[in-house]
Amino acid sequence: MYINIDKFDISNLANEETLFHVANGYLGVRACFEDELSKDRSYSRGCYINGFYDESPISYGEKFHGYPDTKQSLINLPDVQSISLYIDGDNVNPFNCEMLAYSHQFNLEQGFVRRKYTLKDAKGREFTINTKRMASFVEKHLFILEYTVESHNFNGNIEIVSTVNGDVSNFFAKDDPRLASVAEKPLIEIDAYGAIDLLKLNAKAKNSQLKVYVGIVHEFTQGLEREGYSTATNALVKFKGSIEQNNPITITKLVLLADSYHNQNPADLIDEKIKEVRANGAAYYFYAQEEYLNQFWNVSRVIIKGDENVQNALDYNLYSLLASVGRDSKFSVSAKGLSGEGYEGHVFWDSETYVAPFFQFTQPQMAKTMLSYRYNILSYAKEQAKLLGHSKGALFPWRSIEGGECSTYYPAGSAQYHINGDVAYSFMQYFIATKDINFMNDMGAEVLLETARLWMDMGHYTDKGFCLDMVTGPDEYTCLVNNNFYTNAGAQYNLYAICHVMEILWNKGLGDHLKVSTAELDEFKKAADAMYLPYDDALGITCQDDSFLQKKKLDLNAIPKDKFPLLLHYHPLFLYRHQVCKQADVVLTYVMHKGIADEDVKAKSFKYYEDITTHDSSLSLCAYAIIAAQLGDTEKAERYFKETVDLDLNNTHKNTKDGIHTANMGGSYLTIAKGFAGISFEMDGINIAPNPIQAIKDYSFNFAYLGRTIKFNGTIEGFSIELIDGEDLSINVYGESITLSKDSIWEDTYK
Amino acid sequence: MYINIDKFDISNLANEETLFHVANGYLGVRACFEDELSKDRSYSRGCYINGFYDESPISYGEKFHGYPDTKQSLINLPDVQSISLYIDGDNVNPFNCEMLAYSHQFNLEQGFVRRKYTLKDAKGREFTINTKRMASFVEKHLFILEYTVESHNFNGNIEIVSTVNGDVSNFFAKDDPRLASVAEKPLIEIDAYGAIDLLKLNAKAKNSQLKVYVGIVHEFTQGLEREGYSTATNALVKFKGSIEQNNPITITKLVLLADSYHNQNPADLIDEKIKEVRANGAAYYFYAQEEYLNQFWNVSRVIIKGDENVQNALDYNLYSLLASVGRDSKFSVSAKGLSGEGYEGHVFWDSETYVAPFFQFTQPQMAKTMLSYRYNILSYAKEQAKLLGHSKGALFPWRSIEGGECSTYYPAGSAQYHINGDVAYSFMQYFIATKDINFMNDMGAEVLLETARLWMDMGHYTDKGFCLDMVTGPDEYTCLVNNNFYTNAGAQYNLYAICHVMEILWNKGLGDHLKVSTAELDEFKKAADAMYLPYDDALGITCQDDSFLQKKKLDLNAIPKDKFPLLLHYHPLFLYRHQVCKQADVVLTYVMHKGIADEDVKAKSFKYYEDITTHDSSLSLCAYAIIAAQLGDTEKAERYFKETVDLDLNNTHKNTKDGIHTANMGGSYLTIAKGFAGISFEMDGINIAPNPIQAIKDYSFNFAYLGRTIKFNGTIEGFSIELIDGEDLSINVYGESITLSKDSIWEDTYK
Repeated sequence: MYINIDKFDISNLANEETLFHVANGYLGVRACFEDELSKDRSYSRGCYINGFYDESPISYGEKFHGYPDTKQSLINLPDVQSISLYIDGDNVNPFNCEMLAYSHQFNLEQGFVRRKYTLKDAKGREFTINTKRMASFVEKHLFILEYTVESHNFNGNIEIVSTVNGDVSNFFAKDDPRLASVAEKPLIEIDAYGAIDLLKLNAKAKNSQLKVYVGIVHEFTQGLEREGYSTATNALVKFKGSIEQNNPITITKLVLLADSYHNQNPADLIDEKIKEVRANGAAYYFYAQEEYLNQFWNVSRVIIKGDENVQNALDYNLYSLLASVGRDSKFSVSAKGLSGEGYEGHVFWDSETYVAPFFQFTQPQMAKTMLSYRYNILSYAKEQAKLLGHSKGALFPWRSIEGGECSTYYPAGSAQYHINGDVAYSFMQYFIATKDINFMNDMGAEVLLETARLWMDMGHYTDKGFCLDMVTGPDEYTCLVNNNFYTNAGAQYNLYAICHVMEILWNKGLGDHLKVSTAELDEFKKAADAMYLPYDDALGITCQDDSFLQKKKLDLNAIPKDKFPLLLHYHPLFLYRHQVCKQADVVLTYVMHKGIADEDVKAKSFKYYEDITTHDSSLSLCAYAIIAAQLGDTEKAERYFKETVDLDLNNTHKNTKDGIHTANMGGSYLTIAKGFAGISFEMDGINIAPNPIQAIKDYSFNFAYLGRTIKFNGTIEGFSIELIDGEDLSINVYGESITLSKDSIWEDTYK
Repeated sequence: MYINIDKFDISNLANEETLFHVANGYLGVRACFEDELSKDRSYSRGCYINGFYDESPISYGEKFHGYPDTKQSLINLPDVQSISLYIDGDNVNPFNCEMLAYSHQFNLEQGFVRRKYTLKDAKGREFTINTKRMASFVEKHLFILEYTVESHNFNGNIEIVSTVNGDVSNFFAKDDPRLASVAEKPLIEIDAYGAIDLLKLNAKAKNSQLKVYVGIVHEFTQGLEREGYSTATNALVKFKGSIEQNNPITITKLVLLADSYHNQNPADLIDEKIKEVRANGAAYYFYAQEEYLNQFWNVSRVIIKGDENVQNALDYNLYSLLASVGRDSKFSVSAKGLSGEGYEGHVFWDSETYVAPFFQFTQPQMAKTMLSYRYNILSYAKEQAKLLGHSKGALFPWRSIEGGECSTYYPAGSAQYHINGDVAYSFMQYFIATKDINFMNDMGAEVLLETARLWMDMGHYTDKGFCLDMVTGPDEYTCLVNNNFYTNAGAQYNLYAICHVMEILWNKGLGDHLKVSTAELDEFKKAADAMYLPYDDALGITCQDDSFLQKKKLDLNAIPKDKFPLLLHYHPLFLYRHQVCKQADVVLTYVMHKGIADEDVKAKSFKYYEDITTHDSSLSLCAYAIIAAQLGDTEKAERYFKETVDLDLNNTHKNTKDGIHTANMGGSYLTIAKGFAGISFEMDGINIAPNPIQAIKDYSFNFAYLGRTIKFNGTIEGFSIELIDGEDLSINVYGESITLSKDSIWEDTYK
């Protein structure tokens, strides 16, 4: 379970910084070189806490009513990964020495990253730096950086400087709408304290006033002398001593981070954690990390027999999801996790639609935490609904941290009302898979209710049915349309779901705190029944929206390769005017609502939209993989799956430098679970309708359902389903009920 | 021919600054109080040169391809209207004295503004200030300000300080998309020179590097002493002397402005103009102004018998148009003329659609100059087409000064492709009315050709016909739609027009420089023939666009009055989602393309759209007036006409403070000419189809057609048409050909 890079390639370092970042859902540190003097060579020398934001005003050429005035952005925290090396007074680093050997490795089983490289400096001195980094899963405030120097051909004086630096900036790029457009130095009131046995630094985000506290203690090779210093923005400790050939020297930096967004009293917390970490020592945490991951892989790993590349890539993706998702309900998961500043650290619909399902399958408690975040920001969503002119209901912000809308371009932002359906869907799916009635009563039902009310407020009846106008679906190359199929299907599901849930709650004597009448539920049901789902008779396909099929087609083959992604090369009006999709839209609807169209319609629609989809969004390939699998097109399913699974490792979207694509990673799991294994959660429970496979010859995984652990194994010939843990259970296989017991395996061939 | 305000109302001063501004198409000065020390009481102490801009970067939260990086804005030039008054050392001004009497008058016949007011200061001294301002039509670089003080009850020392001040700012309002959003001090390198007989100041716009030169000479009552001063940003001259009861003292400030946008060598020009003005003296220019206006009113005035209010308002409007329109082809007319900074001094489609037609009827040469501006910016329009992804053709910028797109919100900006049709239409109408074949050959045909090519590039054939997708029509409450009726009709006209024009040019052996083939023209004609013009069978009305009639209706009666204009109180998505119109769209199409729908369809459509139109845009009422008149609804026609004609004088849009509404002013004329008199210019020539009138009992006006002057008179009973000047001519009346001769009057009753 390793990811390796064995070639030193300066042009790839920005991607390595992302790929080998270490994170644990609370903090994340990019894999930059430690040497502080080489920091200008870092693409983005990032250290983040999930959801730790600063606020900045948004500037508009023409500002309209309801536009957000300010936005929140994930900010770069004090640089804790700095370690500089001096040999006989000379600073030596990867950029002023010759690189003789290089390897970078992510150990996914033990949960750390090792980088080992041998340098030769101008004076001919050769030495190896060996670093090991870990963001601890058992102590979420802890980042460990072990740094070893070994001389190969000299003895001399050595100085190792370990720093924490508060003078940091945020990353930006003016002309890329996917990145922040203005550079910011977000930290103020920096207070640094440097002593030989402790570095401390605290600072405040300029506008949000959120506070971050850093504490650092070191373990080190006996015999080194130490000096502590601090400046206005830095605290550092110098380790001085002599180095002898083949006699390595190690400094281990144990970094603690705490903040006021997640904690009431981060100053005290950091002091307490310093004590704990001193007492336990680094080795304890490395050991505990492996233990933790053993548990994780037991419940989460998909075993792919006979394809090591796919196995590694999938392992990497699932590990990255674990590392990205918030551990409390103050934040769920940003588009880039804790690996970079792309999309400014915002939560989008990805969290519910692509990431939460993985946890629902493997660790439902984590999915629940993610959903709790949505419940917590419901008041913001109600406010957003008001701002957009609605008289009732809630509209989740398109992109946000603490809950306020941070979208500065509503056509591909706030207009994506489908996020309401996505959130509702995720609550309902979690409920089906867990029957967690208390959570539904306490949080879920209110979310389902308020999102449902929004549809009722915005929608209206025409001779076509219940219509939802002027929205943007998932496909961001087609904006501001009427009756986007995906949106309408999500709204319909949302409306049915709250009706279904209220019936269950009322039957159990729950839900009375929700002020909803049967008359209102009847209205919901009426609208859901009448929901207009556009279909084209002549083509026999689903329409993406009312007007999509009437637009001009764009011949994607005629567009030069360097013009992709199209959004960086064509004006929105050009894209919106054409039949061209950034991503799965109709096809994604099929993923989420399996019964919404006949197989024949799905097959024709798949083909139609496939031809005009660029997959410029990373949220697209997996949907195509899933539906291809469900349609029995094993060749395509596996091709799309392989493109999905190593999207970041191969940097196929050319922006892995800005961060990993967490949604796509979730999608790689969903391709297995929903595409190949064909698992779906219908209102009446799970259904497993496995699909044939070819190139991928054998795969298996465990998943959670109603408190049980179920193992699924798929091969070319057929599949098996086994109850690993828990009481006997009836489930549907291809729509037929079967009973699983612990002492027997259900085996079958594909239908 | 006067506009009067006789009440001193501080809350109305911002409007007065606009209404009584003086301008001449080149320069404009707002009617602020002269006293420099009261300048903080000015809403916007503006002095402008038409098209004199500075450039500034545009900031976007998310910037997409093809968005403009910078925009140009009309900037406030050095303050030339400042005159301060000291009596025995005390500054006295309208805000530190008691106002005993006040009158503000625009003399539209002689072309100046007089403000006369009597003040009583804290020491009981009473005196009258009497000012007279003029922007000279015969010397466009000249603004004159005559300032008289008369004591009523005291003798004493007096000091009058006349200043030119380069330390000025632009007006802004962060939350109003109709105004600039950031305050700027646009002038740098200010060089001021103050001597007793001459003030000079020059400065440069910070980013555009455009230069402005000011020269000021004074005439003054004998016996005053003078002192000249200059500071870093100011030049001033002090007039000192004694004042005696009932013995007025007058200072006349003759201000010359020249600039490098319109002139090659403005520095020399200003010196030359200073000499001329010194030699001629102020009286000469006041006299010449009246002569000039005599000519203007002879050809332009509409005589309304029996309704003085309408007469005055209409006079004011036509005068304002004369004062607003550029005199060279470097600029045509901004939305606010030279009266304020609303819409940042940009040219929109208003210039061709609402203002140019007035000049075409009355002074075709002025219309030609306006159209030349469009020809001059054609290269920018080609560039804009490329930026928006088109492979050929030209797309005029939605808002601009020198030609580059300045729109920062494309849904109600660059997406308004109809501007192409509007420009083309205006060229063609001018050609029909003048048969100016050389202008068409030199400029017009190329504009018609490149705009036509744009439609071909963006449009495509479907089973409905030739379709134009993803545009915004005139109605800015309905954005990004397919097949906007207005846009499609304009494109159709454009395509037919270039075919028609090329035939004429080729027949005369002209047009060979235009690289267009008969095959390309055939394509134009084919697309025009197939142009899709949406129509709703069930309702029997024109559809504003493909989806408009399927949207939710908005009950305008349920919306509180203080929520208008809606754009300041509702998010764009809310507005776009509903059937609600900011302005005439379908109805405006009927104005421009009389034969495009049957009377019955027009009548039903008028009613339908009338109910859902807010007229939040000032470009709307006149279109409703015109079509009401054409439909024979005299009551409505006259009601809409009256709302049109005094929109600024009554400040019904509540933003006259930001500038006059030039388009609406043009519309007030067009209501007479196209609505009441029923004049239209068809491809084969003029047609006059007068419509009945009621409340307006008798009106008459002259207009130009094919070199002739024709007089039209409409009364309740009928109408007459008379050839005033030029050779015999055949014209159509109600579609029937008649011949006009100088010795007979054609009289008829309404059909």
